[in-house]
Amino acid sequence: MRQAVMHAPGDVRVEQRDKPSIIKPTDAVIRVSAACVCGSDLWPYRGIEQLDGPAPMGHEYVGVVEEVGSEVREITPGQFVVGSFFTSDNTCEICRAGYQSRCPNFAPIVSETGGAQAEFLRVPWADGTLVATPGLPDADLIPSLLAASDVLGTGWFGAVAAEAGPGRTVAVVGDGAVGLLAVLAARQLGAERIIAMSRHADRQKLALEFGATDIVTERGDDGVAKIKDLTGGYGAHSVVEAVGTQESMMQAIRSTRPGGHVGYVGVAHGVTLPGMELFLSGVHLHGGPAPVRRFLPELIDLILKREIDPGKVFDLELGLDEAAEGYRAMDERRAIKALLRP
Amino acid sequence: MRQAVMHAPGDVRVEQRDKPSIIKPTDAVIRVSAACVCGSDLWPYRGIEQLDGPAPMGHEYVGVVEEVGSEVREITPGQFVVGSFFTSDNTCEICRAGYQSRCPNFAPIVSETGGAQAEFLRVPWADGTLVATPGLPDADLIPSLLAASDVLGTGWFGAVAAEAGPGRTVAVVGDGAVGLLAVLAARQLGAERIIAMSRHADRQKLALEFGATDIVTERGDDGVAKIKDLTGGYGAHSVVEAVGTQESMMQAIRSTRPGGHVGYVGVAHGVTLPGMELFLSGVHLHGGPAPVRRFLPELIDLILKREIDPGKVFDLELGLDEAAEGYRAMDERRAIKALLRP
Repeated sequence: MRQAVMHAPGDVRVEQRDKPSIIKPTDAVIRVSAACVCGSDLWPYRGIEQLDGPAPMGHEYVGVVEEVGSEVREITPGQFVVGSFFTSDNTCEICRAGYQSRCPNFAPIVSETGGAQAEFLRVPWADGTLVATPGLPDADLIPSLLAASDVLGTGWFGAVAAEAGPGRTVAVVGDGAVGLLAVLAARQLGAERIIAMSRHADRQKLALEFGATDIVTERGDDGVAKIKDLTGGYGAHSVVEAVGTQESMMQAIRSTRPGGHVGYVGVAHGVTLPGMELFLSGVHLHGGPAPVRRFLPELIDLILKREIDPGKVFDLELGLDEAAEGYRAMDERRAIKALLRP
Repeated sequence: MRQAVMHAPGDVRVEQRDKPSIIKPTDAVIRVSAACVCGSDLWPYRGIEQLDGPAPMGHEYVGVVEEVGSEVREITPGQFVVGSFFTSDNTCEICRAGYQSRCPNFAPIVSETGGAQAEFLRVPWADGTLVATPGLPDADLIPSLLAASDVLGTGWFGAVAAEAGPGRTVAVVGDGAVGLLAVLAARQLGAERIIAMSRHADRQKLALEFGATDIVTERGDDGVAKIKDLTGGYGAHSVVEAVGTQESMMQAIRSTRPGGHVGYVGVAHGVTLPGMELFLSGVHLHGGPAPVRRFLPELIDLILKREIDPGKVFDLELGLDEAAEGYRAMDERRAIKALLRP
């Protein structure tokens, strides 16, 4: 089968690899219907994150179940499924508390399984990791269902962690797919005012479509000052951080009022938080790898009812063979997010 | 009047100063009935925090109102009052959300007003900062009411920030007065299991009196391993950090299960939090200077009904003139907390 593999920064190739098969009785193998390139894939692509040899890529996926192991009970061959980017047993205390991404049986899809930017994918802990749709979805819903497997689930978690809700002013730091979908999530969660921080016209437009009420183009200290201006000097009640740099984390913390909530979902790179400033800020801080599995049933339902259209973040669609162009387009910010069809 | 003043690390003297008077119409002046030495006073005493010249000391106090400014409505002369260590107007959005310690009109009692380790104290924003008891309290309740003004309020906030409650296992890092009172708070809030981390016999004993179910003497990585052992490998649901060092913060974060809550109330000194570890921990982090004012009415009520006895943390009682000995005894860990009578 064909699989996208990153050999070095800037060097993504589609290669022949063995089709995966069931290894453990809790595994499933799925035929991937669609996968995509993640903002987090750009960290190694840009050489910021170290590669240890050629790496199969992709951790966002939807597909049709081909085969399941002998202990898989809920997931059956022929079902259309949406996956989570980390595996989880979904039965332990941590999973039952809604933190499936930190399940003791967690593994990142890529390193454990080979990547999802491929024709087939082995998914460990299939019952705990995959959620099946009721019947085959309409083809036009596939991008939105694919978004649920990471960027929507992650943006949603960011908004939940930031306690976005009625009466709240929510600011979103980061205008990638996750930030844009945090705007959508904040809207769905009933936030009163949603401030998208973005300096790119195409992303501002999508933020407004997803429910943003204000756009702030300033960043850093100027961005913080602007958020304070817009919130009576206090700062936002809820701020979603969807970048993962030192600057974006500090921008998020400083934009939040005392007692407010920062939901941070950008994968932290080189971030260190100053203890005394955090102490004096009085904010709540919560985040990490999103427990997408917690939200999947609800998100799939909203998508199938056509109440949300998160698939709009895909502004480039390519065949799997053109994966390298998907990376290039996102790296050069010509695309917000690239969908790949195997 | 007499006032305790710190001249240099290890050098506390009681001196004559002018009696304070009303400066702003929202001020009150109180005659201090009791004050005390705070663990945070030991930072400059030990030379870890810089002193800018001689500093009047003390920010924990109870007393009788002598005089009020023309705009003070709720507080009246003759009332017995319990104070908060930061002033607050208690009417702005931040105060109404329960974060009085971050009120835009906040000021630390000491730097704004002269210290509370004195015969008299001027309290700005008297209506928003002080809470009066119904009538004069019994003399034996004064230590407990004094505790409410900082260490109890701070331990309580730590336990609330850590979401201590029914069904939860709570671990407390730090066995000073704040840590011990976080144990008391966790018990009052209904926690199922309360693990006090302490290696001092007298403090362990008080922790057990306040409701601890387990004592862990290990600290650092060994302490974390012990907490995991006691919690099925997951870590505690709730951890209160009541020290403020790098080691204690990391011990608290690492002792908390994914999705659990860290409430940190130790004043951060030289702390920097590693972003990636925090990201992967999946914990909630909340803390800062405790909004004591939020909790005072409830805490005063519990004390007057004799349902809690936080005054037990005072194991040394001295006249104000002996303030220096109070500092020495706490610095040398001969006392948990020293009460001073002017």
